[in-house]
Amino acid sequence: MERPGGRSARVRDAVRQATLAELAEHGYQGLTVENVATRSGVHKTTVYRRWTSVEGLIADALELASGEPWPIPDTGTVDGDLREITRLVRNGMDPVATAFVAAGMQNEAAATALTGFYTARHTQSAAVVRRAVERGELPADVDAEEVIRVAVAPLYYRLFVTHEPVSERDADRAADTALAAARAGVL
Amino acid sequence: MERPGGRSARVRDAVRQATLAELAEHGYQGLTVENVATRSGVHKTTVYRRWTSVEGLIADALELASGEPWPIPDTGTVDGDLREITRLVRNGMDPVATAFVAAGMQNEAAATALTGFYTARHTQSAAVVRRAVERGELPADVDAEEVIRVAVAPLYYRLFVTHEPVSERDADRAADTALAAARAGVL
Repeated sequence: MERPGGRSARVRDAVRQATLAELAEHGYQGLTVENVATRSGVHKTTVYRRWTSVEGLIADALELASGEPWPIPDTGTVDGDLREITRLVRNGMDPVATAFVAAGMQNEAAATALTGFYTARHTQSAAVVRRAVERGELPADVDAEEVIRVAVAPLYYRLFVTHEPVSERDADRAADTALAAARAGVL
Repeated sequence: MERPGGRSARVRDAVRQATLAELAEHGYQGLTVENVATRSGVHKTTVYRRWTSVEGLIADALELASGEPWPIPDTGTVDGDLREITRLVRNGMDPVATAFVAAGMQNEAAATALTGFYTARHTQSAAVVRRAVERGELPADVDAEEVIRVAVAPLYYRLFVTHEPVSERDADRAADTALAAARAGVL
């Protein structure tokens, strides 16, 4: 019988860490089951049996990434907090994040894993909006998760759809846009 | 010497139309140079010589799509116009549009073509914002293209990043958000 934290859990952890490391180095296009097997020290047939494909590896690595703590700013004002969040998103667009988004566009399992990942992120980040409501900075009936979506969406749009540069000013403006809409009662 | 509209232009047109038709049927993953050659009736070696790859085909088809007229609503108010635009984006997310966005994430030439495509779209759509300024509905110094980006970004974010459903209410709310920010002087 398998103990928690036993051999199977160690194998899974090694494979997930190797997937993230390979993505960081080579991106989605360069990810192969063979390279993940080599880097993790887990036999290739085992990786194929448990993860099936590159997409299975990405979906599992995303679950690991979802569980990682995401820094929630606390600057004292919702304006400051939201700008911290959009700047963090702007600066956090590394090859791994890009690979996750690319994989989601091509594979159902990765897309489902991404929905879970972003749901967790939105819920965590929405704490800054809920605090703002408590402080009387925003209307009590505001949709806290939607404020986060609206604040980060223009950054993703530029990075992954229109392929335009994203300046720090763009990040600040996206945060300010979400707040203006929240204050106007739209969100 | 090649006449305008001569054989070379006809070949190009046939290949671009075939690319769009193949994308509509099979999406980006299913697009092959061979299938485009067969459908267009242009010899495979010619397609390879002039377009090189699937990504070359997509970049050229995007240029064709950029030139197509994009309906600019004129409902009488900027609120109505912007909601028309976001609803149009929501309903226009067919397999071809999805394939374009997916290709842009994986290929530099497609990404550059996408930037051109969206720049044209933003400029055209921004007419509704410029009209609103003339009518005194929005501040004169508003960034018209940015209002369009902000209005459509939450839809793209849900569709291509978080893989969440997009309701008509989401489309309306995205339009209203951009306007609230524009009226508050943020955009």
